[in-house]
Amino acid sequence: MLSMNNLSNRRVVLKSRPVGVPQAVHFGFDDVPVPELGQGEFLVANRYLSVEPAMRGWVNDAPNYSPPVPIGDVMRSFAAGEVIASRHPDWKEGDRVAGLFGWQRFAVSNGANVTRRIEETDLPLSAALGVLGLNGVTAYFALLEVGQPAPGNTVVVSTASGAVGSCVGQIAKIKGCRTVGIAGGAAKVDQCLREFGYDAAIDYRSSHLDDELARTCPDGVDVYYDNTSGPISDAVLQRLNVGARVVICGTAAVQNWSPWPQGPRVERHLLVKRARMQGFLVFDYQKRYGEAVQQLADWLRSGRLVYREHVLEGFETAPDAIAMLYRGENTGKLLIRVD
Amino acid sequence: MLSMNNLSNRRVVLKSRPVGVPQAVHFGFDDVPVPELGQGEFLVANRYLSVEPAMRGWVNDAPNYSPPVPIGDVMRSFAAGEVIASRHPDWKEGDRVAGLFGWQRFAVSNGANVTRRIEETDLPLSAALGVLGLNGVTAYFALLEVGQPAPGNTVVVSTASGAVGSCVGQIAKIKGCRTVGIAGGAAKVDQCLREFGYDAAIDYRSSHLDDELARTCPDGVDVYYDNTSGPISDAVLQRLNVGARVVICGTAAVQNWSPWPQGPRVERHLLVKRARMQGFLVFDYQKRYGEAVQQLADWLRSGRLVYREHVLEGFETAPDAIAMLYRGENTGKLLIRVD
Repeated sequence: MLSMNNLSNRRVVLKSRPVGVPQAVHFGFDDVPVPELGQGEFLVANRYLSVEPAMRGWVNDAPNYSPPVPIGDVMRSFAAGEVIASRHPDWKEGDRVAGLFGWQRFAVSNGANVTRRIEETDLPLSAALGVLGLNGVTAYFALLEVGQPAPGNTVVVSTASGAVGSCVGQIAKIKGCRTVGIAGGAAKVDQCLREFGYDAAIDYRSSHLDDELARTCPDGVDVYYDNTSGPISDAVLQRLNVGARVVICGTAAVQNWSPWPQGPRVERHLLVKRARMQGFLVFDYQKRYGEAVQQLADWLRSGRLVYREHVLEGFETAPDAIAMLYRGENTGKLLIRVD
Repeated sequence: MLSMNNLSNRRVVLKSRPVGVPQAVHFGFDDVPVPELGQGEFLVANRYLSVEPAMRGWVNDAPNYSPPVPIGDVMRSFAAGEVIASRHPDWKEGDRVAGLFGWQRFAVSNGANVTRRIEETDLPLSAALGVLGLNGVTAYFALLEVGQPAPGNTVVVSTASGAVGSCVGQIAKIKGCRTVGIAGGAAKVDQCLREFGYDAAIDYRSSHLDDELARTCPDGVDVYYDNTSGPISDAVLQRLNVGARVVICGTAAVQNWSPWPQGPRVERHLLVKRARMQGFLVFDYQKRYGEAVQQLADWLRSGRLVYREHVLEGFETAPDAIAMLYRGENTGKLLIRVD
């Protein structure tokens, strides 16, 4: 039996329930002993913690695809790390693993909260939380299965330089589409054009969005990959082509969905355009993650796919990290390096 | 050469452009000579003229799937009739035909505006404008291809006793679904239950819609066949199951779409439920009408599918007919019998 009694586990816990975007004030820290491993359990030392838009929904007390994090519990999050002790037959010390391990230094797992074993040891561990993690896998399945882009299609992406959006734009390009990115601020627009290969990019903050969409999408929009909802989406929807597909992947531009906010009714437009809006949740594709990761890793190795990370150093950065994401201050996939 | 000079053609023409639902005041009559048939043309004597919700869109000056009817032109509509003269190799006197022949006694056609040749001479001619026409074909393809009902699914239909809705409910039942109809008034609710075999029916006018939906859809909604938009749809959307399909087939409850009216934003809900909303236009299935008509006719002959018609007598009824439809006063597929 392994003894973990000498290890202390630092955790970021939910202190109070936010309405809308969680702020630093909603989180606190504690230190608890790492428990003994039971039979069938293994211990993960987290190296990187993930920060993503969905975490707002995980702490809000509104209908969602998973129950809210209880007050006092460790903040739910994805993390990537290394197995440092194991009483589980399938896991051994030194194995790399990604999973729903929470904002904490150590996580005990029986395998149920594992997303996947990280096999691509030639690539950086942190990539498992972004381009080779749920962001990349989301982009891959949501674009290809729901968006169904065809060569020559115009694909518009909101939060185009983000962890998911940047991957969507590049996959669409690999599939022979024309890509138009929408991002906030000149730096992100520049990143869209220079790093992520968009054919055009629009700064929704500084420009007249309708005019810019007309200029950059002269043949209309065949696929709209929506990470924002709100006024950006309303403007893009106006330009849908007949048979267009709208992938609803995130709703970052709307702070509060309880009650449902008002917006332009889409029914008549969907009817006239015979267009489709469909929500996407990556967890529905869990059995197929391997196929996406393999393809994404190949594109990374061949240089057809690039990614950008924004790494915060240490636990002290965690409480403000989700708010920072919603303020749009990150310049790549937002991660916390465990100190 | 056939001479048609002795025939006078009575027409219902668009006199002025309505905003919203066209009323009697927007139409007028004229009588014009039937022109000589050119080579490749044939003359149809219309027996029944169709009245349908889409006609509102055809006269409004808003973006639609076809350009608006010009002022002074014969009102666009489907009609069923008989060929009474022909200089076209494929058509001969006595042939039955359905097509976009307009609100007029006679129509000259070169075949381009024909919907289909009516082969099922054992069934009433008028059925070609309803259950064996675009209403039935719409119900068939929109439900089966877009709604994708599975046995045991709960299928909710708005305007459930209407020409399309009644057919949707019965096809869903044939496919092994539980069907819940929403209609306006006790008579229509009764018709849903007694004639069209719905498992449950709700009167949206007299009841508390939310409570009634909760009562009649205890397992949520898998397919919502939406003919209305507006508050009825807003209530049904709240009850979508994960993976639900919303077929947008009509928007009868919203009078004016220019500018787009406001309503609850659906993006977050579609995301959480991984649900789909998709517009349907029957014209996209034109090449496959035959397959639907054949199946629908077989269901009619075997008594598994029933329909109800509401026949107005004579041209004088035409100007008010669309408004009557939107007032919900018809008790079946609304038709005008040519006098």
